[in-house]
Amino acid sequence: MLYFQCDYLEGAHEQVLRRLVETNREKLVGYGEDVYCQSAREKIRAACGAPQADVFFLVGGTQTNAVVIDSMLAPYEGVISARTGHINMHEAGAIEFTGHKVLSVDHCEGKIDARTLENTLEAFWQDESHEHMVFPGMVYISFPTEYGTLYTLRELTALAETCRRYHIPLYADGARLGYGLVSPRCDVTLEDIARLCDVFYIGGTKVGALCGEAVVFPRGDAPRYFLTRVKRHGAMLAKGRLAGVQFDALFTDGLYWRISRHAMDMALRMREGLEKLGYPLFLDSPTNQQFVVLENGQMERLREKVGFSVWEKADARHTVVRFATSWATEPEDVDALLALLAEEKR
Amino acid sequence: MLYFQCDYLEGAHEQVLRRLVETNREKLVGYGEDVYCQSAREKIRAACGAPQADVFFLVGGTQTNAVVIDSMLAPYEGVISARTGHINMHEAGAIEFTGHKVLSVDHCEGKIDARTLENTLEAFWQDESHEHMVFPGMVYISFPTEYGTLYTLRELTALAETCRRYHIPLYADGARLGYGLVSPRCDVTLEDIARLCDVFYIGGTKVGALCGEAVVFPRGDAPRYFLTRVKRHGAMLAKGRLAGVQFDALFTDGLYWRISRHAMDMALRMREGLEKLGYPLFLDSPTNQQFVVLENGQMERLREKVGFSVWEKADARHTVVRFATSWATEPEDVDALLALLAEEKR
Amino acid sequence: MLYFQCDYLEGAHEQVLRRLVETNREKLVGYGEDVYCQSAREKIRAACGAPQADVFFLVGGTQTNAVVIDSMLAPYEGVISARTGHINMHEAGAIEFTGHKVLSVDHCEGKIDARTLENTLEAFWQDESHEHMVFPGMVYISFPTEYGTLYTLRELTALAETCRRYHIPLYADGARLGYGLVSPRCDVTLEDIARLCDVFYIGGTKVGALCGEAVVFPRGDAPRYFLTRVKRHGAMLAKGRLAGVQFDALFTDGLYWRISRHAMDMALRMREGLEKLGYPLFLDSPTNQQFVVLENGQMERLREKVGFSVWEKADARHTVVRFATSWATEPEDVDALLALLAEEKR
Amino acid sequence: MLYFQCDYLEGAHEQVLRRLVETNREKLVGYGEDVYCQSAREKIRAACGAPQADVFFLVGGTQTNAVVIDSMLAPYEGVISARTGHINMHEAGAIEFTGHKVLSVDHCEGKIDARTLENTLEAFWQDESHEHMVFPGMVYISFPTEYGTLYTLRELTALAETCRRYHIPLYADGARLGYGLVSPRCDVTLEDIARLCDVFYIGGTKVGALCGEAVVFPRGDAPRYFLTRVKRHGAMLAKGRLAGVQFDALFTDGLYWRISRHAMDMALRMREGLEKLGYPLFLDSPTNQQFVVLENGQMERLREKVGFSVWEKADARHTVVRFATSWATEPEDVDALLALLAEEKR
Repeated sequence: MLYFQCDYLEGAHEQVLRRLVETNREKLVGYGEDVYCQSAREKIRAACGAPQADVFFLVGGTQTNAVVIDSMLAPYEGVISARTGHINMHEAGAIEFTGHKVLSVDHCEGKIDARTLENTLEAFWQDESHEHMVFPGMVYISFPTEYGTLYTLRELTALAETCRRYHIPLYADGARLGYGLVSPRCDVTLEDIARLCDVFYIGGTKVGALCGEAVVFPRGDAPRYFLTRVKRHGAMLAKGRLAGVQFDALFTDGLYWRISRHAMDMALRMREGLEKLGYPLFLDSPTNQQFVVLENGQMERLREKVGFSVWEKADARHTVVRFATSWATEPEDVDALLALLAEEKR
Repeated sequence: MLYFQCDYLEGAHEQVLRRLVETNREKLVGYGEDVYCQSAREKIRAACGAPQADVFFLVGGTQTNAVVIDSMLAPYEGVISARTGHINMHEAGAIEFTGHKVLSVDHCEGKIDARTLENTLEAFWQDESHEHMVFPGMVYISFPTEYGTLYTLRELTALAETCRRYHIPLYADGARLGYGLVSPRCDVTLEDIARLCDVFYIGGTKVGALCGEAVVFPRGDAPRYFLTRVKRHGAMLAKGRLAGVQFDALFTDGLYWRISRHAMDMALRMREGLEKLGYPLFLDSPTNQQFVVLENGQMERLREKVGFSVWEKADARHTVVRFATSWATEPEDVDALLALLAEEKR
Repeated sequence: MLYFQCDYLEGAHEQVLRRLVETNREKLVGYGEDVYCQSAREKIRAACGAPQADVFFLVGGTQTNAVVIDSMLAPYEGVISARTGHINMHEAGAIEFTGHKVLSVDHCEGKIDARTLENTLEAFWQDESHEHMVFPGMVYISFPTEYGTLYTLRELTALAETCRRYHIPLYADGARLGYGLVSPRCDVTLEDIARLCDVFYIGGTKVGALCGEAVVFPRGDAPRYFLTRVKRHGAMLAKGRLAGVQFDALFTDGLYWRISRHAMDMALRMREGLEKLGYPLFLDSPTNQQFVVLENGQMERLREKVGFSVWEKADARHTVVRFATSWATEPEDVDALLALLAEEKR
Repeated sequence: MLYFQCDYLEGAHEQVLRRLVETNREKLVGYGEDVYCQSAREKIRAACGAPQADVFFLVGGTQTNAVVIDSMLAPYEGVISARTGHINMHEAGAIEFTGHKVLSVDHCEGKIDARTLENTLEAFWQDESHEHMVFPGMVYISFPTEYGTLYTLRELTALAETCRRYHIPLYADGARLGYGLVSPRCDVTLEDIARLCDVFYIGGTKVGALCGEAVVFPRGDAPRYFLTRVKRHGAMLAKGRLAGVQFDALFTDGLYWRISRHAMDMALRMREGLEKLGYPLFLDSPTNQQFVVLENGQMERLREKVGFSVWEKADARHTVVRFATSWATEPEDVDALLALLAEEKR
């Protein structure tokens, strides 16, 4: 069986795991105050070019989105998201659970256009009855998006400028941040993210860790008593070291980037193969998720030997499926997948 | 100045007010247990052809929507609404405040098509990852809709059947129920509503009362301890008599229908005049709200003498505005409006 | 039958009702922007000696408490209340519904002592793990309390000073404010309330109105976009005039105080009678609620002819019951109650 | 420096960690559906004598309490807890965040007495106005309690019987369950817990795991769509293996009990030493937390060499402090602590 259904099929990268083992018996205080959390914070600040950043570690992505968004919105505000955004579609209403509306807007391959955002914001403020409506209080994007696509530096800058004009923060969900930033087609850097976003998170769960996401407020302006807010959400990790040691390892000697690049190489290898075999790509994803249109019969046959995600119906006879690579993907597995797909074409 | 901006510009219909005065010094128990609430309940049950119905009185529309929807959804469920639905657009996030997502779907002139609903529900249940999504737990419609349009009996039946097939309740927001049911183009009766919906409310605030909406669970299956849920929402009226006396009056000798018909007559008078004057209607509304496309200059001039609602931009040079009639609209005022509009055409 | 079970058994005071009738057909904008709301605001500001106060009208007491408290607390904060406070005992969890804890503290006849408050606040801030606890963010008192007792000016000043030292607001629930301020044993004025509290409400429902409570932020620092917060709670009154006209009437020519004094007179008449008859008072209430200890057999016999509230068990054979007077209580009814109680003693 | 401030100072027990390493590269599905989660579930079911139990893995204790309590309460219900209960004091309002009130009751050394519970429940149902109050919908206890104390089998049975008589579930917070069940003074077994409680959790974080708590519904009646509820709370672990592998290891060959017994041995060693040295114990704790009364000067001197928790003031000159042992406590460290305390006595 081959496994491409997602990018969190394995445990942690060996170097991460080794550090957990090495530090295991050290007696460390809880709740993120230990030396590894401190060290990880410093490394992340350096990597972001944001020496004054506030950095917090949480366990998972949905949790992080809920905590961050709930903490930054006023009660009467909602968060703008692409209709396809993870918070709007696949978080079981975790944002609404905190009492806030997700204000969905149109998207282009998962991305929000600065023009769309501008129009939305302008329309709100010009509406006579806007006091009866949810105020747009924040913009949520993902980098890369649900569709594996990337904002260009120009697009991201335009979004950030629009947000600033309307005095609302821009938040980037970086569950797969590594896989986006190392793409050969990416012209955005981590420093750019830190400069243009008001808050973002660096995904660990999908990029080499057992669990963990690092929330970064690059300007050091985290909402007051953030830890208490985290606790109230049930999101406080007692043994904060679990996240701290892992992120410390990931941000030592560029491990995070090295393993991200591996996933990217595997995705490119897959993509080239798919194109060579003539499989139509659903869209042009420059990152570790590749979306392919399969004929339904092909899909059913493949299912017996390969794990993948069913994305959406293309038409009555075709389906879009997703193959994901990760830091742990072996080239042999990519080749085996391509061989199976080649058979289908024969 | 003429006033057509909404249908809640006056106090209560005189017969309603008179009953408040006549009963004022009676000593009555609170919280909806008094004789007038009981009497109003009986009259509403009779009008609905639902002798076993549970009937509760609340103060306003947004409150009613929040209490009813929150009470009928499981925590992991959301409510399906047309994108233009009041709960999705104009209730300041009152539904999300209760922790539930509004699952917006496409609409046609404010209405949800049974086919759209079916597709939405089917897609949810077929999605591999639906356990990570908000469950569609209820359908919200308004009758008439935000656009003044009406579901036909056939459309409403199709929606109800779809809901039943998926075991989710159908809820009708009847803020303007009277103005819908008396429309000459309406083939739905109150009994139909009670038969096809699992819960609905009969609007008082816009149809002759100072305040008050009557929530009806036609099959007598209101969520357990409904009053406590109401209290928890801060929605309990201490002097329940205020709603009880008013609804008792409205449902005595057909007052509710008589005053609804007056609003309808005024709307038809307005509509005929608008058509005669050649003003394009934005859509074909058969109820008390009429949507007209005005040239922006016309609109600005009119604004000085007439109150109306700005609905949306039609194009760069035109705007859709709404004129609403009510039980209190005088024919002279309609004629004066038409005269002003006639001047514009000269 | 005699009725002393509560102070909201009748409709509105006749002068209030008359104003509703007189203004009924005036065309007024909604949501509290009409001329009567404006006028009522001005009169309330004048009565409070707080010309810059923000004043909002809501429908009921639990609703008001939930909206005000939720609006003034940070997410990580709770509200301090006497264990017996209305928000802690009799609001069906409406505060917790908004996500905030009620931090209950010991009380003395319904009142919080400044020393108790000081200790609570100091203990919180000195606790090593206070970041894992709910922050005390506000103090809730009622004036008069649930037990009909009153804070003296000195007590209220001490509470206010403690709150200021800890930078948290003091909020007074004035559901029966009138009945407290007119008590011959009250040395606090409305101006004092406005000077010492950061927010409070003037109760209408129990003091002459059909419904309605006036929230006052005496320093004009209401939370931003308060109306949207109100709407989100489902607490917005479409026909704001309903509250505006009533409060305008109540604060014209001292009506509010006049009718409050009547309730007070009736309570004193009752109290004197009770004492003369030798009925033990549960506590020394200087306001319109009188708490009497009845032998259980007496209570059961009385129940057939008099409405009252069962407060709590005194011991196995006695029960504390409450008799409430109001603006609408007739002296004949008090005398009839006393006659029935006299019979019991024979 | 010596460390006794809590029982989560180290990483995971070596056998647990080894299994994480051994299984690290296995490709496993997420969200708790992998083979290790399945295996751990079976072992837990066997240990509980509850073959049909539903078992779920969550990350931390506050999170588990919030998810379980919110899932089992109706909206109008609250949870009964000892005033000193973790959910009432040290979870930053995480229960209230879900909209539910914690109904605190008196306790005895952290325990709720069945009689107190009975009285509370009876008083609620007999109260005339209970529809205006939060319904008691569940009982929360911890085993052992915050004070390290244990319910006897008889006490637990009495609580369970009271709960059943009132048709409300009994929930045991087992953050330190192992440390309670292995106490020589404990006459309750895991099977008893499973038989008497409707839901409970087996703590991992404090008993050998990096993180993780196992929620057990012994009768297999977990709330519907529990995983979606977990996700909505932001509590879903993407790599469910992290909890599964750990609990599988903990419940293999009695590891959980073995390491619990070690902590117990260390606590007894400490306790004997404390008694021998004449230090007064604050209460008679039979588990891994020992509460000692220190003179304030002693406490300050000790602080420089030993980590401990400041529990509460005993009087003006004395303070209660807590020393906790765990699976990782070394006998040498206990002896070193005792030596320091002996010095204080010289």
